Amino acid sequence: MLPTPRAERFPVNTPAASQIFTTVLSQGPLTRLEVARRAGLSAAAVTKAVRPLIEAGYLVEDADAQAPPALGRPANLVRVDGGRALFVGIKVTGDEIIGVLTDLCCRISVARHTSLTSRDLTAVLAAVADVVQELRIEADGFGAPVLGVGIAVSGDVDRGEGTVRYSPFLEWHDVPLAELAAVTTGLPVTVDNDVRALTVAEQWFGAGAGLSDFAVVTVGAGIGCGLVVHGRVVAGAHGVAGEIGHVTVDPSGPRCHCGNRGCVEAIAADAAILRRIRDATGVEVADTAEAVRLAHSGVAAAREAYARAGEAIGRGIATVANLLGPERVIISGEGLAAYDLFAEQIRDAFTAAAFGSAARCDVQTRPLTFEEWARGAAATAIQSFIRADT
Amino acid sequence: MLPTPRAERFPVNTPAASQIFTTVLSQGPLTRLEVARRAGLSAAAVTKAVRPLIEAGYLVEDADAQAPPALGRPANLVRVDGGRALFVGIKVTGDEIIGVLTDLCCRISVARHTSLTSRDLTAVLAAVADVVQELRIEADGFGAPVLGVGIAVSGDVDRGEGTVRYSPFLEWHDVPLAELAAVTTGLPVTVDNDVRALTVAEQWFGAGAGLSDFAVVTVGAGIGCGLVVHGRVVAGAHGVAGEIGHVTVDPSGPRCHCGNRGCVEAIAADAAILRRIRDATGVEVADTAEAVRLAHSGVAAAREAYARAGEAIGRGIATVANLLGPERVIISGEGLAAYDLFAEQIRDAFTAAAFGSAARCDVQTRPLTFEEWARGAAATAIQSFIRADT
Repeated sequence: MLPTPRAERFPVNTPAASQIFTTVLSQGPLTRLEVARRAGLSAAAVTKAVRPLIEAGYLVEDADAQAPPALGRPANLVRVDGGRALFVGIKVTGDEIIGVLTDLCCRISVARHTSLTSRDLTAVLAAVADVVQELRIEADGFGAPVLGVGIAVSGDVDRGEGTVRYSPFLEWHDVPLAELAAVTTGLPVTVDNDVRALTVAEQWFGAGAGLSDFAVVTVGAGIGCGLVVHGRVVAGAHGVAGEIGHVTVDPSGPRCHCGNRGCVEAIAADAAILRRIRDATGVEVADTAEAVRLAHSGVAAAREAYARAGEAIGRGIATVANLLGPERVIISGEGLAAYDLFAEQIRDAFTAAAFGSAARCDVQTRPLTFEEWARGAAATAIQSFIRADT
Repeated sequence: MLPTPRAERFPVNTPAASQIFTTVLSQGPLTRLEVARRAGLSAAAVTKAVRPLIEAGYLVEDADAQAPPALGRPANLVRVDGGRALFVGIKVTGDEIIGVLTDLCCRISVARHTSLTSRDLTAVLAAVADVVQELRIEADGFGAPVLGVGIAVSGDVDRGEGTVRYSPFLEWHDVPLAELAAVTTGLPVTVDNDVRALTVAEQWFGAGAGLSDFAVVTVGAGIGCGLVVHGRVVAGAHGVAGEIGHVTVDPSGPRCHCGNRGCVEAIAADAAILRRIRDATGVEVADTAEAVRLAHSGVAAAREAYARAGEAIGRGIATVANLLGPERVIISGEGLAAYDLFAEQIRDAFTAAAFGSAARCDVQTRPLTFEEWARGAAATAIQSFIRADT
């Protein structure tokens, strides 16, 4: 038997060094001095961490063309060489596997979709291994090694232990997915909740870059929320966090799958909207696309269902803002396709329920495709690779 | 004019050093090795930080009587010398100033209460200066210097700027209280929201010591909440955070002073309970003590008002748990006097509304006197003194 090739490791492993690299990765190119300022570290610490990273090819240095020559020797800009390493991100849904190949800067170069014929663990593991294998073959053309795989699953996921504790869509309980997928793919695997993975991608490579406190709210089949507080994604002491979907909006409202009534998710998730239109009109609505068509064609019950969903989402966001006071809330998810139908209600309900200066929070939308959920998974793999502590 | 005496400064000013001191302060006595482990720093960093702190008298070293001699040279225990420095904590309410003198370990040695005859800034500043002066005279007897004052005020307070942005009880807007009180007392002043100050005291010296994620929920005239996430008190990007009082429990419930309906505070604050009893019975209830008496004597409307308050508080706590997944929630405040009247409802509503493993959060109660609110203010002064970054 051939020995398993030892995976390439990140050349620095102190918390300060990974913080410095993360700062350049998410906010660069930057001068060394600016890196030190933003990371809250000394210039000496930056110089010490940057050297081995340049030697190993993870960072490169460019002369700053824009630096005013009057300031003497131009300060060089440090940036990440995205092409130095590749990562695979996988999003597992109830009926599909979406895989992307990204560079170290989390830019997608290739994407693959595979239908799932079964939600059995064995079938899902085999499909994941197939997608990873296909993407590794593609990776050969880029001349850089694939250094890790991230897998994003909705539900209760313990990233530290690499375990899917409970996934309602897959009907899985306590599956040690990271370990199993590492065996089938031969690569280090990070497993995380899909909304938290998306939040990591926003934090490092998206609308949350440089912010220490923000939230991502996803709208669609479920209503999810990823929270970044004091610069780190909130995971919850017991694995549950960001459950904006189960903020109560109306205690006499529709029954939620969690057992309570009137949760945001029981009013604003896709299925809840379809149900409300059906209950009001007696017409069975096939899917969200049809519900949106009905609303756009002026069917009052459909418009009302979306308006009510928007109000619930806006109240949920206000609750997050009142408790945490984030700088920004990014609304995303496939439900954004209907955004024109509830944007105003989200805004109005948020403004009405936000307490005092919490209303100053910047609420913005950011459409994301399913592939970007997979990109979120790749972001967690990048994070695991460069973080000394994970 | 005599030069202003320069205040004594903490002898170390790096983030690592204040973290090391904080670890010993909140969790000591500890061996150097254990300090390093808990602070996530190297033993060398601990040794380097501890030396000047011992020289300056802030830390002392004792032989560990319990260390097993079989392990060779006994490891010395490092602890804070509480008597090395004194601090004043002030809680300002609408009609009273409560001041305490504490040592460096935030133990109260003297307390003073002064009635406020006016809520005018000038009158409050004069009363604060008087209480501080009285406590400094007491401090002379302890042979240690008073190194800082903390002032806790309910409402929207910007600690970084030292400003009371809005205090409903005092009817203040944008008052630069830290600067003004520093002039009248001649000491460095830290101003913070009262619930956040209490949370700092719990984090360093109370039921939150050693926890990285917990919440303090205060019940009484208002319903407040202090949140610690990733080891730090959440302040909110715009000054608002922890507003559990404005989580909506019932959108068709009683009108809240914030303009919405059915907020936790509109149902569970003292005044809301009195109002509900009055509306149901037609009897004017003078104060909370009377409301509690009525409930204890079996008046159904009074019992129901408390039960409803408990349900609202339990739902609010579940919302915090669902979003942040804290390890522990500490319920406190003067409203705890009525705890037997709503403990069961808090517990039941929390359990029903907590999502999945969020229900594993440890919800406990901790009675606190008004003086302990002032102690919270002293804790913020201690924090400002030893923190390089604040």
